[in-house]
Amino acid sequence: MSNEHKTLQQLASFLGAELDGDPDCLVQGLNTIKTAKVGELTFLANPNYQKYLTSSKASAVILKPDMAQAYSGNKLILDNPYLAYAKLTSLFVDVLSPSLGVHPTALVHDKAIIAANVSIGANVVVESGCEIKAGAVIGAGCYLGQNSIIGANTHLYPNVSVYHGVSIGQQSTLHSGCVIGADGFGFAPDPQGGWVKIHQLGGVVVGDKVEIGACTTVDRGALGDTIISDGVILDNQVQIAHNVHIGEYTAIAACSGIAGSTHIGRNCTIAGACGVVGHLNIVDGVHITAMTLVTKSISKPGVYSSGTGMSESALWRKNAVRFGQLNTMASRISALEKLAKDKD
Amino acid sequence: MSNEHKTLQQLASFLGAELDGDPDCLVQGLNTIKTAKVGELTFLANPNYQKYLTSSKASAVILKPDMAQAYSGNKLILDNPYLAYAKLTSLFVDVLSPSLGVHPTALVHDKAIIAANVSIGANVVVESGCEIKAGAVIGAGCYLGQNSIIGANTHLYPNVSVYHGVSIGQQSTLHSGCVIGADGFGFAPDPQGGWVKIHQLGGVVVGDKVEIGACTTVDRGALGDTIISDGVILDNQVQIAHNVHIGEYTAIAACSGIAGSTHIGRNCTIAGACGVVGHLNIVDGVHITAMTLVTKSISKPGVYSSGTGMSESALWRKNAVRFGQLNTMASRISALEKLAKDKD
Amino acid sequence: MSNEHKTLQQLASFLGAELDGDPDCLVQGLNTIKTAKVGELTFLANPNYQKYLTSSKASAVILKPDMAQAYSGNKLILDNPYLAYAKLTSLFVDVLSPSLGVHPTALVHDKAIIAANVSIGANVVVESGCEIKAGAVIGAGCYLGQNSIIGANTHLYPNVSVYHGVSIGQQSTLHSGCVIGADGFGFAPDPQGGWVKIHQLGGVVVGDKVEIGACTTVDRGALGDTIISDGVILDNQVQIAHNVHIGEYTAIAACSGIAGSTHIGRNCTIAGACGVVGHLNIVDGVHITAMTLVTKSISKPGVYSSGTGMSESALWRKNAVRFGQLNTMASRISALEKLAKDKD
Repeated sequence: MSNEHKTLQQLASFLGAELDGDPDCLVQGLNTIKTAKVGELTFLANPNYQKYLTSSKASAVILKPDMAQAYSGNKLILDNPYLAYAKLTSLFVDVLSPSLGVHPTALVHDKAIIAANVSIGANVVVESGCEIKAGAVIGAGCYLGQNSIIGANTHLYPNVSVYHGVSIGQQSTLHSGCVIGADGFGFAPDPQGGWVKIHQLGGVVVGDKVEIGACTTVDRGALGDTIISDGVILDNQVQIAHNVHIGEYTAIAACSGIAGSTHIGRNCTIAGACGVVGHLNIVDGVHITAMTLVTKSISKPGVYSSGTGMSESALWRKNAVRFGQLNTMASRISALEKLAKDKD
Repeated sequence: MSNEHKTLQQLASFLGAELDGDPDCLVQGLNTIKTAKVGELTFLANPNYQKYLTSSKASAVILKPDMAQAYSGNKLILDNPYLAYAKLTSLFVDVLSPSLGVHPTALVHDKAIIAANVSIGANVVVESGCEIKAGAVIGAGCYLGQNSIIGANTHLYPNVSVYHGVSIGQQSTLHSGCVIGADGFGFAPDPQGGWVKIHQLGGVVVGDKVEIGACTTVDRGALGDTIISDGVILDNQVQIAHNVHIGEYTAIAACSGIAGSTHIGRNCTIAGACGVVGHLNIVDGVHITAMTLVTKSISKPGVYSSGTGMSESALWRKNAVRFGQLNTMASRISALEKLAKDKD
Repeated sequence: MSNEHKTLQQLASFLGAELDGDPDCLVQGLNTIKTAKVGELTFLANPNYQKYLTSSKASAVILKPDMAQAYSGNKLILDNPYLAYAKLTSLFVDVLSPSLGVHPTALVHDKAIIAANVSIGANVVVESGCEIKAGAVIGAGCYLGQNSIIGANTHLYPNVSVYHGVSIGQQSTLHSGCVIGADGFGFAPDPQGGWVKIHQLGGVVVGDKVEIGACTTVDRGALGDTIISDGVILDNQVQIAHNVHIGEYTAIAACSGIAGSTHIGRNCTIAGACGVVGHLNIVDGVHITAMTLVTKSISKPGVYSSGTGMSESALWRKNAVRFGQLNTMASRISALEKLAKDKD
């Protein structure tokens, strides 16, 4: 389906949903239950929003079976309205597809291998030995270093930088400003002062269906590769250091950083602004809350946190000072306990 | 006034300041009270720097009325020397204005609307439906996606990426490497494993007189727009997630991130390296200190903080261990109190 | 030596190492002791890895003298195997050198001064007054603003943005997406509401043998320059604000930010995700652990930290609540102590 009005019947078929109402109802967009207008389809996923149901101006609502009776208008009924909404968004993307072919200003090395039906934008530079597979879209101003590989149907938005020897799988998305394959931060202390650079000889392997956010950086390995497994989703401004391994389907939110050689399992979620120090092992199914610093390996699935609560600064300052006295406070409690026991 | 020597009289007129001294004194630059040389103008805003006043080599000083008697040299007298300094900086910018017109290497779609007196730099790509208004400057290598709008006299430094459907107001400044309108981080868990991408159907609306720092990212909305209001100033490496709303004149310092759908009021300041979790509401006039994690809505203006104090690591480690025992320590104190009470 | 197979004898000579074994043994790469294959050279620097020594498939091992007897195969013997590894990496970099000369699509202003044997890549823009010295490599899509200077043998990877009036020394490396010389975050509050921009009149001076990571930002000074001294190494996504001074050989790991006018000494290390507030002075030889917020000047070399330990969230939540009661807890302990003393 292209981006035009759809009938409710078309959407029901697309989703495999039960349709209750006018199959010819025209849907021209999606919106939230509070802000939807006539002609738009909405969904009820979070019970907190049920109160907006009867007053919603949407032309149709996606509902769970147990909510169907609560709404008298046009509806699509299925078990997971939020997933249905996610699937529907692909039908309403409001941007023209990039034109196929290689833009005349793109500079593609004659030793690069370019599949027939790709889109390579203006001012793109593709170095020797690169391979760009069928259906890939390379946005304007992207740079692909020697021997890098872009998988089928993978989309690089404009101004992405890919260093040499980076392999990216299929159906992945890389957003503007991200940098894949820059040198890991490896230096040996020089006994005569300063640092000796450790040239980073490994690469980066990014799997299929990976999303990499704007201004996110994934460094190449020192020896061996940095690995971003299939289905991993990385938000903006995430930093992945050299030789990190991120397991399948793990999600990392914005501004988090993973230090070198750490191995993170599958199906983990790391919230925003977290840090994970180097050389750790985090098992599958670990969830880290926002702005946590992970300083040790985690061998048990679960939810982990660090940091303090927030309060007004006047109170916080007093408590922060007391934090610096905590060990002393503990000793004082112990002394009081001993005293009390001695008196018994 | 162009960037050349000014007389003290010219500067007094520009500022509306009282001039006491030689009106023909030539000023060729601005500098701090400690480092100013002959020919430079300085200012005294912070009383801590008063001690440098008499020894300053500056050719003239901007002072408050109550400080005028403390200095016998050339002076400009007004109520707010720091504001005066800020205003004067515009006269001493030492870089040539970019040349007007469209650079021959820029690729401007024939369905883009370009005002007459803009400057569009080398290798810029302007997609169909864009509008670039009078006086705008688009630096080399910038990318403007379909239907994006750049307001009058707005300046994009080189290598800025603007996605489709982004609207930027007038007199705004976007620094290199910033990315406006990339996809928000929206995915629905797939019951069969992994994630289903929620295509981000909203846009970004940036107001007038907004400053956006280098490598800062502002994501497009999922449904509806992400909003950066007039007069907002964002430092470098700030992350603004989808559907965030930042109120007028709010300032956010470097490395801070605001998670999705959070609404931040007017005249707030968020210091560096803060995190604000999603779906919160922060009222006007809230100030957040550095590296605070804001985990709940704030309904009262004031100053808020989280985190601990810093200390030498040997001490810190002991206290950090005790943090993990805090709840137990509180129980032990309660037990001691009960014991003491029972004994009374 | 170019990137081809080397004999163990060649490598011994390069390192000044004692060779024990077959001098004609061919080495085609480096690898870790666990993953090395036949034809590869490895090293034993960390005693924890000694257990892999006898089973390693490497064709030769670099060892300390006191470990030489523990291995019967080909070996290179010297005092600092890790430093030897670092030095050897330069011989095994697997990417072609960029071709010399100015790419036909590069736009070099006729008032720029370009040394004879530089490499200027595709779509590079070099503004008037720039100077690019011998042996410098400017990657595709880089932008060099007016009067910027790139020192001899300095390498800018693709898509680096350098503003006007920035000076970069020799043998330095700047990774993709970094932005040097954007405006510092300087604004004066306008009594009529909002902010008056303080145009940033200083520049940036980057020394020799400096490494600047991907998407790292270094702002220009407000008045006077921001200084990155010789031998400083900055990881990815580091933020250096206006008028900061970083002393020689100091290393700053990813996602850390240094606020304005702070002076950091020589030979410091700042781990990842740290923040240093503005206008501080940090002496030489200070080490800051990960995610620490430095809120005061440090006058004594040593190791400093802030933050809490990490734990499972269920426990952490209780302790985080108690953090908010710390000042009260301290008072309760004091009251108990007074009570105990009174009863004596």
